[in-house]
Amino acid sequence: MTTTLDSILAGKYPAKAHARRVTEFLRARGHNAPSVLYLEAQKTRLIEDNDEPMPFRQRRPFFYLSGCLLPDSYLIYDASSDKLTLFIPPIDPESVIWSGLPMSASDALNMYDVDSVLPTTDVNASLASVAAAHGGKAVVFAIADQISETTKFEGFAESNLSVLKGAIENTRVVKDAYEVALLRKANDVSAKAHIAAIQSSRTAVNEREVEATFISTCISNGCREQSYHPVVACGESGGTLHYVRNDQGLFYPGTKQRKENILIDAGGEYRTYCADITRVIPLSGKFSRETRQIYEIVLQMQTECIAVLKEGVLWEEVHALAHRIAIRGLLALGILRGSEDELFEKRVSVAFFPHGLGHYLGMDTHDTGGNPNYEDKDTMFRYLRVRGRLPAGSVITVEPGIYFCRFIIEPFLKSPELSMYIDPNILERYWKIGGVRIEDNIHVTKDGYENLTTAPKAIEEVERLAL
Amino acid sequence: MTTTLDSILAGKYPAKAHARRVTEFLRARGHNAPSVLYLEAQKTRLIEDNDEPMPFRQRRPFFYLSGCLLPDSYLIYDASSDKLTLFIPPIDPESVIWSGLPMSASDALNMYDVDSVLPTTDVNASLASVAAAHGGKAVVFAIADQISETTKFEGFAESNLSVLKGAIENTRVVKDAYEVALLRKANDVSAKAHIAAIQSSRTAVNEREVEATFISTCISNGCREQSYHPVVACGESGGTLHYVRNDQGLFYPGTKQRKENILIDAGGEYRTYCADITRVIPLSGKFSRETRQIYEIVLQMQTECIAVLKEGVLWEEVHALAHRIAIRGLLALGILRGSEDELFEKRVSVAFFPHGLGHYLGMDTHDTGGNPNYEDKDTMFRYLRVRGRLPAGSVITVEPGIYFCRFIIEPFLKSPELSMYIDPNILERYWKIGGVRIEDNIHVTKDGYENLTTAPKAIEEVERLAL
Repeated sequence: MTTTLDSILAGKYPAKAHARRVTEFLRARGHNAPSVLYLEAQKTRLIEDNDEPMPFRQRRPFFYLSGCLLPDSYLIYDASSDKLTLFIPPIDPESVIWSGLPMSASDALNMYDVDSVLPTTDVNASLASVAAAHGGKAVVFAIADQISETTKFEGFAESNLSVLKGAIENTRVVKDAYEVALLRKANDVSAKAHIAAIQSSRTAVNEREVEATFISTCISNGCREQSYHPVVACGESGGTLHYVRNDQGLFYPGTKQRKENILIDAGGEYRTYCADITRVIPLSGKFSRETRQIYEIVLQMQTECIAVLKEGVLWEEVHALAHRIAIRGLLALGILRGSEDELFEKRVSVAFFPHGLGHYLGMDTHDTGGNPNYEDKDTMFRYLRVRGRLPAGSVITVEPGIYFCRFIIEPFLKSPELSMYIDPNILERYWKIGGVRIEDNIHVTKDGYENLTTAPKAIEEVERLAL
Repeated sequence: MTTTLDSILAGKYPAKAHARRVTEFLRARGHNAPSVLYLEAQKTRLIEDNDEPMPFRQRRPFFYLSGCLLPDSYLIYDASSDKLTLFIPPIDPESVIWSGLPMSASDALNMYDVDSVLPTTDVNASLASVAAAHGGKAVVFAIADQISETTKFEGFAESNLSVLKGAIENTRVVKDAYEVALLRKANDVSAKAHIAAIQSSRTAVNEREVEATFISTCISNGCREQSYHPVVACGESGGTLHYVRNDQGLFYPGTKQRKENILIDAGGEYRTYCADITRVIPLSGKFSRETRQIYEIVLQMQTECIAVLKEGVLWEEVHALAHRIAIRGLLALGILRGSEDELFEKRVSVAFFPHGLGHYLGMDTHDTGGNPNYEDKDTMFRYLRVRGRLPAGSVITVEPGIYFCRFIIEPFLKSPELSMYIDPNILERYWKIGGVRIEDNIHVTKDGYENLTTAPKAIEEVERLAL
């Protein structure tokens, strides 16, 4: 597998194929005039009041049609002639003294799937030339707010700044083999990092040591950036979904007793492609009875939801399935009371599983094209980041969880209508768990799925690593 | 020392004293009307086209007068009544569900050196109230481009948006004991990280593994952010001053021979205060003859320059001293030819030591108040980031270097006037070194200095760690 992966990634990122697919999307929506696509890379920007550059993050639309990570670059795609031109910064002699030689045009031509490489000083001349070649009948498509003041769209029939962004966002949902390989690579590195993080928890005394091990393993293995700010939350903090502090002790203050578990939601980014993986591990090396009970429910939620994935599955139904399994599990433990259907209809399980089952994954952690409806009156579906049927080629996270978060559960306990469904005495034993979430990254195929995530999650395996 | 340090840092950051000093600075420049200072924290901002927040970096002027790392906050200092008020975001019930409880006003009052803490919704009412208390005679000082559109300066005699930034930047040059303790803490953590990085070089095969170890050690020990993008450069890359790739192999391609050295320029940030430390280590565990020769010269440059530091020393003279020592050393090796004075007058040593000797250090790596003159016609001083006499209480880096960078040296070799001063045959043996820079952080005092940097730099000690 590694050989296949490395051999795919040794090839060029399929920028040209992406440019064609975006153009097809535009044509299918009635944009039939000769199309010219124009995109800009992120600019080098300084930190406010400081002479250091801001951390660089390439613009995703630009990367999608170029594969190029250079700042201050541009691209033009002439759909009629199928010609993709990349513009990179010219050599600045003053800068060479301090920073060495930048990438040359011939290096760039060897590295990227483009037809020609020119210096950025040629952008306007090239735009004018391609406009003239179409006799003034071409439409140039660009993204509003991502166009330099110096850029001139002259000689085109029209500049359309409203549809290209959406066209790219929609096209990005279906990944090709190269993109899946990038996501798999990000997952392979992140799996190493999760294993190292689990092992580090044996001797760590603070969340930040576990986070440090995760980040370090990613950097060592080629993922310089994290896909998102890691969540490393021990004890009850595991119930805080957007926990960002990562600086709390792993022991209860005043005692030498270790907290229950640690939840690690973290993934490395490989050439803009993101892994997004969550694991929960016991800080004593062995899950407590209560954590094990909850862990088994969440693992079952995940396993059964992944099992039903294939092209065309309705994501709302998969999300509802996860809730059904959570309800059955919490009923069996006595935390919930009542009938499965009633609990489902009353949305009581939302108290324990408040977020969506997952989101598309790609160059953004919460990738584009999911069409969420955050205004949905139905609390069970309001936070679902993907709505509708999953196409083959999409990559989606499956990340069910059960949390014991007082801010979320207490309104249910105080509700005259809903409090009857929760047994507060049994619940009392579970607050210490914080939360359990298990998250993998799944490539949806015509007949099923591929799980790209190799980080261990079986109870015995996690306990062995943590002990 | 650690006990003293920790006991200082257990106290509050001296925000009030900073507010008073900034006000004194304004008064000394003729701003005698009752003064009100108004500052804003950095806002929470999203990554472009993404729902994740940008990496947060607190605005330094706001931190300097508050000690507060919260985003979306504000402060008002009424100089006449010496009253400092901090405004922090109120509780947002929707956010509590996902993120937990934010800092409360009473927590903030316990934590920060301020007189009162109010919610940010009270900012305009408080401004109006303080303006009214002065009967319309007060001047409000704020920083242009760092004022929310919602903020109203009503009832003041004047809003002055031009002098506060400079006043704070100047005031920041002289550090108090608390700030020195923060810088020392950043240095202590960074020294641990440099030691771990040196040790990791024994088994690492790529620069990124050494960088990963550095960053990880910083995070584990409480420095979540790096002061600046680390430079981890092996072999000839050590001659590239702004090297940022940190992804090259430590072996020469095609052979199993390790490259000569690795240069590590990296420092952790502790509560906005920066360490900035450079070390060079031998990748074979033992310095080659040539590296050792250059290392000894650079160490002598650094040692002698540090030795002359005290209140009132002229930084240009210290920088010139470093050049004198470099010239003598390179003459002794035969790389340079001619007399010391002639080489100095002709600025030939700039070919090997092209940058300034150091810069102020504080909340910015290149800290404020240095008054550089980048238009200086004299190449020896053009890049010096501090000009003039050093006050007691300033903290400055001392970072001499000798580099073998072809882009910098070759114009000298080709110059009809200057080529005679460099022996190209002897030079040939030194290209492999890349560059040697040794950088410590020095607290200037009335009678001398304190070196805040504890990372090892003696040849024997570095070799022992690297072997």
